[in-house]
Amino acid sequence: MPLRLYDYAGSGNCYKVRLLLAHLNRPYQRIAIDIFGGETLTDEYARINPLRSTPVLELAGGRYLGESGAILVYLATDTPYLPDDPFELAGVIGWLIYEQTDVMPLIGGLRFRMLTGRLSPSDPDAIRRRDGAHDVLSHLEGHLSTRDFFVGDRYTIADIAIYGYTHVAHEAGLDLAPFESLRAWLRRVELQPGYIEDLEPYGDNATPGAGRSIYD
Amino acid sequence: MPLRLYDYAGSGNCYKVRLLLAHLNRPYQRIAIDIFGGETLTDEYARINPLRSTPVLELAGGRYLGESGAILVYLATDTPYLPDDPFELAGVIGWLIYEQTDVMPLIGGLRFRMLTGRLSPSDPDAIRRRDGAHDVLSHLEGHLSTRDFFVGDRYTIADIAIYGYTHVAHEAGLDLAPFESLRAWLRRVELQPGYIEDLEPYGDNATPGAGRSIYD
Repeated sequence: MPLRLYDYAGSGNCYKVRLLLAHLNRPYQRIAIDIFGGETLTDEYARINPLRSTPVLELAGGRYLGESGAILVYLATDTPYLPDDPFELAGVIGWLIYEQTDVMPLIGGLRFRMLTGRLSPSDPDAIRRRDGAHDVLSHLEGHLSTRDFFVGDRYTIADIAIYGYTHVAHEAGLDLAPFESLRAWLRRVELQPGYIEDLEPYGDNATPGAGRSIYD
Repeated sequence: MPLRLYDYAGSGNCYKVRLLLAHLNRPYQRIAIDIFGGETLTDEYARINPLRSTPVLELAGGRYLGESGAILVYLATDTPYLPDDPFELAGVIGWLIYEQTDVMPLIGGLRFRMLTGRLSPSDPDAIRRRDGAHDVLSHLEGHLSTRDFFVGDRYTIADIAIYGYTHVAHEAGLDLAPFESLRAWLRRVELQPGYIEDLEPYGDNATPGAGRSIYD
């Protein structure tokens, strides 16, 4: 059985996994999941992933793995995309955690609200979230100011994870002009062998109340 | 040089690292960091950890590692506390991420507010946070209802990470009585060789405005 990926097109978390699979040139079956059509709210989906999030990777033997960072680790083990060195491995895991605690909620959460019209740019909540996203971008910029990639001297799943939402920061109404090192790093990611672009952002059905997103 | 741990006594994130070091019987030098005394706000501390959080592990050669989950991975590599199998390794990383996105903010964040008097039990924000923490406890309970430990059949850093704040859930005003599997698991953790108890919770100086905590 090939790998199966339960995948929502508008999700940066899903894109990360598609991107790594492309780098690895690994075949897989994509199962499109319509979050806003309620497809993660069924009992069947809860058996696949009790947290009801996307992506989920299905392996041989009916084993399922949720959480994008965990899927990246699984696929990258014993490849150049995950370091063996304990200090570098730990550094990658630290960035995978920061991506989910800060990058995704602040940049991804704001992008979702802007693209679906839940917030307008001048809304106080949008301003507050832009300030938080700016802090995240500043932290990433500071780290990249003396490095080409997030960990060690090469492209790893730490870069893939952080690229997932930072490359669409402009869709959140964020201006990347002041973040020179970050912009140079985005270009470096896009030059990696096997790089593929993201799918389309949220479709017409991503309307308020039509379902529950990871950002709610 | 022995390992050095920059450590705040009231932090569950720091306790996780102390607990693993005790299991591993690894000597280290503890550097007490007083968050509320402003000791993470200095320029010197920003050089150690730009995110200004605790814990931070200092290694030989002036290398620093922040983020409790990352430190656990570093210390547990090539020990029984971190699985080699890629599926189990990925499962551990998934729980380390969930612990930081959900367990720590909801249970740890509520505990901090209750212990320092920032919230009273009947405050609407306390009620909202208790509901969120209850969802987290239910998810953990569901997972443990058919397993002794979070990943595979043995105690790993996934258990250590989740134990960090769940063992003090009562200090957040949460009632663990309905969570039978979780309570049995807490006892199993406490029977592991080398187990040590947590240090005291927030000291008298953990007063509003005295500094910035990870929960603010």
